[in-house]
Order: sequence, then structure tokens, then C-alpha cells
Amino acid sequence: MSAVPIFRRVALIGFGLIGGSIARAVRAQGLASEIVTTARSEKTRARVTELGIVDRVLETNAEAVNDADLVILCIPVGACGPVAQEIAPFLKAGAIVSDVGSVKGAIVREMAPHLPGHVHFVPAHPVAGTEHSGPDSGFAELFINRWCILTPPEGTDPMPVETLRAFWAGMGAKVEIMTPDHHDLVLAITSHLPHLIAYTIVGTADELAQVTSSEVIKFSAGGFRDFTRIAASDPTMWRDVFLNNKEAVLEMLGTFNEDLSKLTRAIRRNDGEALFEHFTRTRAIRRGIVEIGQDSAAPDFGRPHPPLEKKAE
Amino acid sequence: MSAVPIFRRVALIGFGLIGGSIARAVRAQGLASEIVTTARSEKTRARVTELGIVDRVLETNAEAVNDADLVILCIPVGACGPVAQEIAPFLKAGAIVSDVGSVKGAIVREMAPHLPGHVHFVPAHPVAGTEHSGPDSGFAELFINRWCILTPPEGTDPMPVETLRAFWAGMGAKVEIMTPDHHDLVLAITSHLPHLIAYTIVGTADELAQVTSSEVIKFSAGGFRDFTRIAASDPTMWRDVFLNNKEAVLEMLGTFNEDLSKLTRAIRRNDGEALFEHFTRTRAIRRGIVEIGQDSAAPDFGRPHPPLEKKAE
Repeated sequence: MSAVPIFRRVALIGFGLIGGSIARAVRAQGLASEIVTTARSEKTRARVTELGIVDRVLETNAEAVNDADLVILCIPVGACGPVAQEIAPFLKAGAIVSDVGSVKGAIVREMAPHLPGHVHFVPAHPVAGTEHSGPDSGFAELFINRWCILTPPEGTDPMPVETLRAFWAGMGAKVEIMTPDHHDLVLAITSHLPHLIAYTIVGTADELAQVTSSEVIKFSAGGFRDFTRIAASDPTMWRDVFLNNKEAVLEMLGTFNEDLSKLTRAIRRNDGEALFEHFTRTRAIRRGIVEIGQDSAAPDFGRPHPPLEKKAE
Repeated sequence: MSAVPIFRRVALIGFGLIGGSIARAVRAQGLASEIVTTARSEKTRARVTELGIVDRVLETNAEAVNDADLVILCIPVGACGPVAQEIAPFLKAGAIVSDVGSVKGAIVREMAPHLPGHVHFVPAHPVAGTEHSGPDSGFAELFINRWCILTPPEGTDPMPVETLRAFWAGMGAKVEIMTPDHHDLVLAITSHLPHLIAYTIVGTADELAQVTSSEVIKFSAGGFRDFTRIAASDPTMWRDVFLNNKEAVLEMLGTFNEDLSKLTRAIRRNDGEALFEHFTRTRAIRRGIVEIGQDSAAPDFGRPHPPLEKKAE
């Protein structure tokens, strides 16, 4: 703990990939004097106690938020409204209440009405993750060089927003502020639609009559396996994302379908020129992502390749 | 060169990612006494000479195949027919002629009629690659633990098929034999459709009115960046794949579209149960791929995460 703590007590409600990564990063960077957490299942609470990453594991949300300066809901979007209602009476005056949900309009609509006037509500979304879930899946480096988007509702006191910014920056994140509605549009294309498409194609491959599942799995290195990673993400979390960002997702899906029809028509008509032009254009986007450090420049995401064993004579 | 060479002279026509990886692997494993190559552009030929990976770089395809025991066309599918016609008169009796194309039905249709009866034609497709192209992009480990599919036309002599199997196995690949038509169906779902979908969504994201390209790039870690990798693959190669495996791709696309409509309807109707059920099922496929070693078990494909720098006091 080399730094001056930003908060005295941080309370994490939920300890999956994101909650667990925050706990590890906060401890590694000394961003809080005390980290307390709770989780819905006894099994998770027992595992977190075993891991020894937090100061105290509590049984209820009410106990967890007690006297906390920062409360972060690290639970699926659909659970945030009810939990906000549940914890409201126990929140300390002046506390910052935040979340990590992938949808922000619905979070504001569902949580804000329950929260007392004496706390500061600053919704947040760290755009980071892996396909793994559960208390063991988190790691302190998850947020490094990733963006965390804050969407304070209009009229939010600027001081707690800056404090939360410093907190996320302390975990290595870059912080951006935008409106909840714009966040939901941006994430619909950069995250929600990609997940929907990946979930679809993986399902399609699983149900074919002409090609067996075992063939799909065997020959997946031709591209398919890339999609299976995000289609292995937490089902509860993603169900809630689609139910809570419906309009923006359906809008992006409409545009995607038009574009897919265009490329399909080019294939049907043997229009090689149109295909070539499109495939050349999309290459540039990858370069942009690699250039600003949002993906690895290593071929194949840096996947490991074992060495070739020399053949015996 | 610890092993007994399988071939005296191997000729590679084309020196991109695949040709270059074969050359490096053949040399590392001592699978041939001599490797010769050619490439269409003078620039590539000069670069290959500089790299010093092969024994001789020749100016023409005719010179390259001269006296070769194995000739591999490592060029886009659309170029294979004309090149087969061009090299036919110069092929040695008893030579094996092969390729590395991602489509096999069209390769057989386009190449076989040109090849003389005194050579053995054994089409091949190593299901391996990265998003990089060009003479510098190859590496000897590319084929390790990846499948190489051989699709010998009916009536092919079994001996050269076994020789080619040993050659690919020597580079670390697992080898499977199937018909060209079945190959094209399998690859349509495990490779071609995923590429088409990735190319589409990356194009969609690039053209939106409500979200800027720079926002798409910044917040791509939410899932989108995974798609940009395969949408950065070689445009010429992929144009040829779609033009030459049109029927199978359009068929898989039809099934995909039906499935996408089903999920869209579930979102529209707030059918959380249907979404949850689908998202749970797709998780299992990922596990299967990781279990048989066709992808890394490391979270996020094993993408590197830099360490968190300790904050100064």
C-alpha cells in the first residue's frame, strides 16, 4: 500500500469477475483503507473468505454498505434496482454509490429513484472483462489501459465524480464521462451487438445437420473459435444487457442486417470488386485499435504456439 | 536437420503467411533436402532472398517446379487454376502437386483438368493462420496442433497421400482426409461465415452516424475488437474464398439469419428465459474447443496485461 487511500471503506456488492478484480486492484494499489464485500450465495462468500483478498466478508447487503464511503454494485444489471432499494436506508450520508453495469440508461432509471438525497450516485462502466466468471476469475491488472465510462445524471455534484475518476485511474483505467443514452448507443455497437452475433453463430454451428459439433470444434481455428470466447460470457449478465438496452441493440442490429444483405448480394452476384473494397476498408479499423493500445499487435491476439519438437532420426 | 528428409526438392509457389510458414517449418524440421520458391512480385522475391530461409528464389513458376518432388501452390484460390495450367508442362513425372486453399471443391474443378496424368494431385488445407500477411508474417510453429485437411480426388494413388500426410505431420499438424464437398461445408461454418460476419460488423461500426469511428476504436475492448482481427485478414484471399464457396456460404448464412431472427424476437418480446437458455448452451462449445487444445484456456485468448505500476506516495 504505497499510496494515500482515496477511500476509508469501500463496499463491493457482488464478487464475480469485476468485483473480484476491483478488490485485487484496490488492495494492490492501496486505494482504500478497508475493503468489505458480500455476495448472494454462501458458497461465493466462503470462497472470498478463503481467498483472503478483502478485509471482511459480510452476509447481507445492509451490513456491507454500513459506514462505507464508496459502494459499488458488481452484479447483473437486472439486480441493481432491487438492491438499490434494499440498501438505501443503510447508506451513509455523503457516500458515493456506483455500479459496473454494461448498460447505463436503465441503471439510472432503476437505481436513482431509490437512492436518498444525501448520497452521490455516479454510475460507472469499466469496458473490460474476460469470458471467465466467479470469485476466482478476477485479477488486479484487468482495468489497465481500458476505459471506464462514468455517466453521472444531470445535476450530480462534480466532486464525487472526480473522486471516482481518481479511484478508477488508480486501478490503471482511463476515464471518460458521457450521458447514459450515448453510452448505451456506443456500447450497443462495440459490445452488445458483437456478443449477440457471437452467441448466434455459435448456436447455429451447434445445430447443423450437415456438419457435426465435433467437426465444428476440431476445425474451429479457421475463425470460429474467436467467436466462442465472447459467447462463453456470463449468461445472466448478458440476458440482462439485452433486456435493458433493447432499443439501441435493435437499432444497431437493423444496420448490421442491411450491411449483411449487401455483402450477401455481392457474393450471390460474384461481385469480387465490392467484396475486395469492403475487406480492404475493415483492415484499417484493426490498425486503429492496435495503434491506440486497445488490442495486442501480436498475431492471433498473442495466442501461445508451442515449439516444434525435433523429429527423432 | 535431424530427420531424414521426406522430399528431395520442395517448390513453393507464393510466399505469404502460409508459404513462408511452410518454408520455415520444413527447414526447422529437415523435411526436404532443398526448398525453392517463387513469388509473383519482384519485391517479395527480393525480400525472401534477404530472409535467407529458402535455398533458391526463382523468377518464374516454370523454373520453380522444375525437378521438384512436391509442388505447393500457396496463392489465393482464384489464381490456382491459371497457375496449374502454366506449370503443367514443367512438372516432373511422379511429383505431388498440392495447394493450401481454404476452398477445395473449386480447387479440384479448376486445377485437376490441367494437370498431367503422371503427377499426383493431393489438395490440402491447413486450418491455421493469423491476420498478418506477406513474406515476413510466417513462422515455423503456425501448424502445430492445427488440422490439415487433405481432399484427394477419387482414384488418387494412396501412397502420395500418405507421403503428404507425413509431411504435414512433420510440421506439427494433425491430418484428416475428407471429400472436397464436405470440406467446403465444414469450413463454411467454421471459417467462411465467421469471416463474413466479422467483415460485416466491422464495416457497420465504421459507418454509423450516431457513434464516431474513434469511439468505436476507443471502446472496442467490450467485444468488438475480437471481430476486427479476422476482419483484418488478406482481402484477396477472402474475396476468392467467397466467390469459390458461394453455395455452402449462402446456405450457412440462411441458417444464421434464421437464428439471428429468433434471438432478435426474444429481445423484442423481453423473453429472458429464451436468451438465458441460448447463452448457457453456447458456453459448452467453448469448453469443447479448449479441452481438445484448439484454443487457449487463458482468459481473453491470453492477451497480455501489463503490470499495475505502484502509485507514488
